[in-house]
Amino acid sequence: MSTTRRLVILTEGQFGAHHAKTAMGVIRYATDRTVAVLDSSIAGRNVSEWLPGHDIPAVATLAEALALPEPPDTLLIGIAPTGGKLPAEWRATILEAIDKGLEVHSGLHTFLGDDPEFSAEAAAKGVRIVDYRRPPERHETAIGRPHAPGKRVILTVGTDCAIGKMSVALELRKSALRQGDKAVFVPTGQTGMMIDGWGVAVDRVISDFVQGTVEWMIEEAEGRGDWIIVEGQGSLDHPAYSSVTLGLIHGATPHAMVMVHKPGLAEHDWDHIAGHAFPIAKLPGFIRLHETVAGLVAPSKVVGIALNTMLYPDEAEAREVVARIAEETGLPAADPVRFGGDGLWAAVHKAVDELPWVARALPVVPST
Amino acid sequence: MSTTRRLVILTEGQFGAHHAKTAMGVIRYATDRTVAVLDSSIAGRNVSEWLPGHDIPAVATLAEALALPEPPDTLLIGIAPTGGKLPAEWRATILEAIDKGLEVHSGLHTFLGDDPEFSAEAAAKGVRIVDYRRPPERHETAIGRPHAPGKRVILTVGTDCAIGKMSVALELRKSALRQGDKAVFVPTGQTGMMIDGWGVAVDRVISDFVQGTVEWMIEEAEGRGDWIIVEGQGSLDHPAYSSVTLGLIHGATPHAMVMVHKPGLAEHDWDHIAGHAFPIAKLPGFIRLHETVAGLVAPSKVVGIALNTMLYPDEAEAREVVARIAEETGLPAADPVRFGGDGLWAAVHKAVDELPWVARALPVVPST
Repeated sequence: MSTTRRLVILTEGQFGAHHAKTAMGVIRYATDRTVAVLDSSIAGRNVSEWLPGHDIPAVATLAEALALPEPPDTLLIGIAPTGGKLPAEWRATILEAIDKGLEVHSGLHTFLGDDPEFSAEAAAKGVRIVDYRRPPERHETAIGRPHAPGKRVILTVGTDCAIGKMSVALELRKSALRQGDKAVFVPTGQTGMMIDGWGVAVDRVISDFVQGTVEWMIEEAEGRGDWIIVEGQGSLDHPAYSSVTLGLIHGATPHAMVMVHKPGLAEHDWDHIAGHAFPIAKLPGFIRLHETVAGLVAPSKVVGIALNTMLYPDEAEAREVVARIAEETGLPAADPVRFGGDGLWAAVHKAVDELPWVARALPVVPST
Repeated sequence: MSTTRRLVILTEGQFGAHHAKTAMGVIRYATDRTVAVLDSSIAGRNVSEWLPGHDIPAVATLAEALALPEPPDTLLIGIAPTGGKLPAEWRATILEAIDKGLEVHSGLHTFLGDDPEFSAEAAAKGVRIVDYRRPPERHETAIGRPHAPGKRVILTVGTDCAIGKMSVALELRKSALRQGDKAVFVPTGQTGMMIDGWGVAVDRVISDFVQGTVEWMIEEAEGRGDWIIVEGQGSLDHPAYSSVTLGLIHGATPHAMVMVHKPGLAEHDWDHIAGHAFPIAKLPGFIRLHETVAGLVAPSKVVGIALNTMLYPDEAEAREVVARIAEETGLPAADPVRFGGDGLWAAVHKAVDELPWVARALPVVPST
């Protein structure tokens, strides 16, 4: 994956209305360049309206994208269809892309490469279909591997899913590299993989092997650098995704954690039964809980708070919220995506170096 | 699955030396009758040496088992091969069993039904291969389903894996039925499934769908009875299996939990890297931690302690240990497998009925 791709991202009907988390992440952080967004609901508009500085046209058809001065060479599926089944129009677009010689990249649970029609067409045209969520063949449980000497492992955790754990990890890596730290990002979800070109979507791994898979990715990352920044998934308080979160905490055995939180959000927002609300955990206690739960396997400390202040559009108010939460938690806090991550990274770096257990091989208790 | 099978259980080399957890569980609790254990290392001996009251011969070859007055109709694989690959001798035994018209039942991660040689032979002979760990096709995340009115859900949790969470659940069901409670056992692992004839091995489910799968099993169980006793898996403090445990806690949203503990065991005993020990969590704090972690999604309380006193062969000493832990935790405690579960069930039943949240639909907080 050494050459840079030119992407057209399919977000049909969801770029403006919903999060389109994958599309936003790839546009913001990937080395691959997005040349168009394929979404008839915003055709004629420009991504810079949502993400200032990203001059990317939205088009209604693949033909329009292919007529651009620098046409795409890859179709990336940037959203998930409701109910898991591919709508007929998407099928037509995907087949058209393959027919025009574009690679197709997908992070869906349903593997496009296993679709008989897509795979036959791709074989005929000699193009690749990349299913980022396809799990590795490796089926191993965790063995309690200690970290290599001199390595520091940091995991982003959070109070909810889809609030920015990946973006925070990427911003911290950027700041770390800028400050001369040999930092590595460990992608644990399909969007992170699309951005960084490696990793495993751990939510797709057989549950018995989640910790083992994460342990193995950390080993790989320790070969690539010294400061290992692991993308978190879900949250310990999420009714549907907490098990994946705990697999990351116990599989990565991080020296430290950065807590990601979206102030003003009261409930978990996911596809759940009507009439019940599932509240977001409260911060100071939830921080201690993470340290206790992580510490069942290896000591760890929350050393910083990364806030997603999207619900406070007024900048002065957002900065007040950041200051208030820093005060409440006694920890360095920032919104690294909105205001930059350099200060937070400097604080995290310093705090991690002062942890009594960084000099020890984790995990953790020497055999007697 | 209405007729009772006659099982020969393959435990080659592991019945005496190791746990042979599956074999022991099936012999003890299954409706299906075990007529022989196939294990050359103990051939000529009798299971009653290990499990008093179970008069079952150990044989060296399948031919010997088939020559018994009541020959087996099913070969059950009662152990896992080291490294995951089937030894050549097992292959020969399995093929011989199929050739003789026996069903083959397996709880291995590697599906025997997907083996070309086994499946061809089974098709030719018209016999079934049952892979208990094969996950359901259903791929759904949890939706936060509330329990039906009048139902009580109880989950067994523990301080380690392989210390008796399944056996405790089965003993409690037995006592519950004896005391007139309409109780249901929810199998969440392959041995429980072999014993009770339904369920899902949740450690084999894609991690994103663990909570959703457990939620769905609870719904099924609520249709079968009023007191739902869910088999736990792993433990929150286990370096390799904690994520599966949390998936059960948040997927089942139990009104109450029973904590299973093996006094005298200091470290987690699993296939881990040499030179490091992973200590077992300490009881009073670990109980509170379970209530806090469960309570992130729905309120729950540990209402009883089930002890595995195997490390205290002396009965008087074992009873002292039980009394001491009841004192330390302030909770009813017993070793239900060794001394019977009637007292513990009566205490659990009473405590659950007194919980303030049993009258509410869990999970949990009504939308405002």
